Amino acid sequence: MNHKLKTLFHSDEAFLNQQEGLKDVQQQKGNFEFDIQEVGISNVKLPIILKEQERLQTPLATIKLTTSLKSNERGTHMSRLIQNLELYLAKPLTLPLVKELVQQIARSLAQERVDLAIDFPWVFDTTSPVMQLTSTQHANLQLNISYDSPQTMELWVVMKIGVTTLCPCSKEISMYGAHNQRGFITMQAKVDETAISDNWKHDLKNIALSNASAPIYNVLKREDEKFVTEEAYQNPRFVEDLARLVAADLEEVHWIKHYKVTCENEESIHLHNAIAVIESNK
Amino acid sequence: MNHKLKTLFHSDEAFLNQQEGLKDVQQQKGNFEFDIQEVGISNVKLPIILKEQERLQTPLATIKLTTSLKSNERGTHMSRLIQNLELYLAKPLTLPLVKELVQQIARSLAQERVDLAIDFPWVFDTTSPVMQLTSTQHANLQLNISYDSPQTMELWVVMKIGVTTLCPCSKEISMYGAHNQRGFITMQAKVDETAISDNWKHDLKNIALSNASAPIYNVLKREDEKFVTEEAYQNPRFVEDLARLVAADLEEVHWIKHYKVTCENEESIHLHNAIAVIESNK
Amino acid sequence: MNHKLKTLFHSDEAFLNQQEGLKDVQQQKGNFEFDIQEVGISNVKLPIILKEQERLQTPLATIKLTTSLKSNERGTHMSRLIQNLELYLAKPLTLPLVKELVQQIARSLAQERVDLAIDFPWVFDTTSPVMQLTSTQHANLQLNISYDSPQTMELWVVMKIGVTTLCPCSKEISMYGAHNQRGFITMQAKVDETAISDNWKHDLKNIALSNASAPIYNVLKREDEKFVTEEAYQNPRFVEDLARLVAADLEEVHWIKHYKVTCENEESIHLHNAIAVIESNK
Amino acid sequence: MNHKLKTLFHSDEAFLNQQEGLKDVQQQKGNFEFDIQEVGISNVKLPIILKEQERLQTPLATIKLTTSLKSNERGTHMSRLIQNLELYLAKPLTLPLVKELVQQIARSLAQERVDLAIDFPWVFDTTSPVMQLTSTQHANLQLNISYDSPQTMELWVVMKIGVTTLCPCSKEISMYGAHNQRGFITMQAKVDETAISDNWKHDLKNIALSNASAPIYNVLKREDEKFVTEEAYQNPRFVEDLARLVAADLEEVHWIKHYKVTCENEESIHLHNAIAVIESNK
Repeated sequence: MNHKLKTLFHSDEAFLNQQEGLKDVQQQKGNFEFDIQEVGISNVKLPIILKEQERLQTPLATIKLTTSLKSNERGTHMSRLIQNLELYLAKPLTLPLVKELVQQIARSLAQERVDLAIDFPWVFDTTSPVMQLTSTQHANLQLNISYDSPQTMELWVVMKIGVTTLCPCSKEISMYGAHNQRGFITMQAKVDETAISDNWKHDLKNIALSNASAPIYNVLKREDEKFVTEEAYQNPRFVEDLARLVAADLEEVHWIKHYKVTCENEESIHLHNAIAVIESNK
Repeated sequence: MNHKLKTLFHSDEAFLNQQEGLKDVQQQKGNFEFDIQEVGISNVKLPIILKEQERLQTPLATIKLTTSLKSNERGTHMSRLIQNLELYLAKPLTLPLVKELVQQIARSLAQERVDLAIDFPWVFDTTSPVMQLTSTQHANLQLNISYDSPQTMELWVVMKIGVTTLCPCSKEISMYGAHNQRGFITMQAKVDETAISDNWKHDLKNIALSNASAPIYNVLKREDEKFVTEEAYQNPRFVEDLARLVAADLEEVHWIKHYKVTCENEESIHLHNAIAVIESNK
Repeated sequence: MNHKLKTLFHSDEAFLNQQEGLKDVQQQKGNFEFDIQEVGISNVKLPIILKEQERLQTPLATIKLTTSLKSNERGTHMSRLIQNLELYLAKPLTLPLVKELVQQIARSLAQERVDLAIDFPWVFDTTSPVMQLTSTQHANLQLNISYDSPQTMELWVVMKIGVTTLCPCSKEISMYGAHNQRGFITMQAKVDETAISDNWKHDLKNIALSNASAPIYNVLKREDEKFVTEEAYQNPRFVEDLARLVAADLEEVHWIKHYKVTCENEESIHLHNAIAVIESNK
Repeated sequence: MNHKLKTLFHSDEAFLNQQEGLKDVQQQKGNFEFDIQEVGISNVKLPIILKEQERLQTPLATIKLTTSLKSNERGTHMSRLIQNLELYLAKPLTLPLVKELVQQIARSLAQERVDLAIDFPWVFDTTSPVMQLTSTQHANLQLNISYDSPQTMELWVVMKIGVTTLCPCSKEISMYGAHNQRGFITMQAKVDETAISDNWKHDLKNIALSNASAPIYNVLKREDEKFVTEEAYQNPRFVEDLARLVAADLEEVHWIKHYKVTCENEESIHLHNAIAVIESNK
């Protein structure tokens, strides 16, 4: 089969001779044996526009956009993918816009399946617990959309956010102190796009922060540092506890149909991490 | 549910008071609502031993090892995971050894599911095409094993390897030259462990290199450079072509039950990549 | 000396007992033996504001901000550093603003030396060479300022930008084709802040793009792809050539007092890179 | 100057016409205006051989090797660089071997300056403090050699190693607990190669571990976890303290002529790091 394919890729003379002007090799038809599930562009860097209440944000996003390709088609239209990305992402990024983009790609390339993933940092304000100082924090977001025409569309939103975690075992067995560290909570949620809250970024953020040993802040004065140190000590969390607490909250979000939560603690007493994963179809 | 869980994690006094000596908080029993699919350690760095024909290799591997945890158990035994890794990986790494390790973990932690992923670089020799100079190349490998007792075990081997790719369209439409670049081929293969070839690393490597526009070498003299430049020009490959050619060869490997091939070209005329993915259950 | 220091760090009871309310351990005075050249915060992620002609950009920047610390002071004021960053970076980022920020830090912390580095992606438009299609490209920038009071201030601007490079040797020795690849040009320039052009980002970008085998574009139609393929073939560049050509242009920029240019080609026929560095005090 | 250079790079017909067989473009002579300080290969991945007392280690190293190039020479000999690397690194890596390698490169390429940097992970054993369990830890090392003939040779060894750090301020102001985290200590040392200890890796490692709030171990049982939790609480360290303590020890190592220590704490209460740098010419 491999040999036959190689020949096919080489023997496109007849096909090319029919064409005038610049030849279009991608347009070659034949029996290329394999449907391709995903073909397109990855690691695309484009600025996006987020119209947040607090401020306009235009972070550089990292994007992957692919379509399927039937076994009788040799190549896809890479430049149409990037052109549509440039066109659509010049408008403020919303879930309806992303949905429109993948439908447009499916039509324009006449393919049944389209996959799009957009990764970007999102910035939000925090207020320190005692001195009430405002500072800027960030989380990493991903919009992930899988379109399979005629009508299947799966939309996932993903947030990865940092928190403080403190070990219950270390606290319990030690005369004083307890090891604590940065933990990262990743929440992947398949959403009901007709029901999703406008406030979904803050909803997910609050679920993460409220279940950690303590939130993380950029600016802390000493009064605040005392507060978060003691708060963490009063709220020890195994990585397992944290995953379950976050799952319990995600269960109750009505616009989430399926979720996966991954908690990873950058253990201060080891060079490796502790990790826990819960996935639920609700 | 979240509130109930928080209370449970705090009200472990009764449980702890029964214990003497160092308390064991992880051992707390209760209704923690959620089974955890994966809990354990990640980003573990340990040297492994590869007894290759050509030479002994002891690269530093990056490892993730997790088990399931039932909803009535609060925590897992992290230190048993790392201790078993240290114990088993002191022996030469083979597929039977890895299988034994996950079974031992399942028994030792009395859990049904165990997942293990070991990532490491693998070194092999190449010979330049004209001057026949030997040099050293590497690919990244992953062993991935999912154990679900009593008897389900899925074993995947993964190789990511670099090649040269040259664009057929650019070649066809241009009076001279054609853009070419580094491409990376990732082959993920679910294997029949009773049938897998001892030579599986070389088998996968050869499939990748033989289907590229040209292989990649560390050492090339000018005679060799002429050869690979012309070889690439004579064998142009779209990212789609490359994925199909590799798939065609993986189809015919008898010890592979299911595979996924991902080709990603670091386009020399763009800052983004071109990508194609084929997955098949054979 | 180490032992004496350890004792000092432990025996701060007397110092602390003088204080009321929340103790301020950082304020401890003593003979701590070593001046510290740089102490502060790193890997800070904050959005910045770039008022470019074409569009407003608010990328997430990665920041390091440090001061010196004399041997008689135990600790610095980390929270003042981050607070000043938040305050200043809420305004559009300009070179005068950055200069004001480091002077403010020097005053506020009563330190002689301040070092600030701000890394961020910068987005610009490109027009494809034949079809004249506009698309979006990016480069990575760094502002680097070293302040040493009373009046020494060194300001560096750094750009890392991608281009296409094609090997002259491969072209010359081969019957057809020539290996080409992504190359990255890093220009570090110590600037005369009284003379620097408002257009410095475009100036540096144009120096890089005009000396490469070909520029890189996000969007290329086939007519464009033909053009850049042939352009690269007509303008082969060793990594040495590219470094010298860029240096020759940087020599003539009147607002640059000292520069370092690093060219790194991601060779398509090797897994390693080719690199060349020229540094000149003009 | 740029224009003249471009012409020169294009007008090599006369030069090439003198040659028979495969043309050697790199060998072109002329006035290329700029000496190049460093030209060669980077991101080379090769296995190295470490003959440690405890075990043989063959990690994959990341290597950069460059030479100078005079303004009258167009290109260097990249393949000689990689061939010599392959040749020399097939032997156990020692400081004399590395010295021999750069001298050989200087001779072989007839260049005055050679720079070599070899990065690799190094594995060592640790013993848990109470249960005395042996486990495997790693640090990242770099050998860095700058040769400037006839007789100048600077040899630097660099170690980056992880530790636990606990904040003195957080401990002092809080009723219970104290934030702690992973910290990384980087020690760069210019060495007297005639005096350097055979045990230099362990010497540097011990300096880092003995000055931290606590060492880091892969395997800790609960008795050990209690120990290191309390040890860290009893030995709080600002990032400034840690840098000074390490500096105090490096001052007393007789084979170190110049050093730079960088301590970076991955603060558990922030997403940014705290950093301190001390450099000394002794």
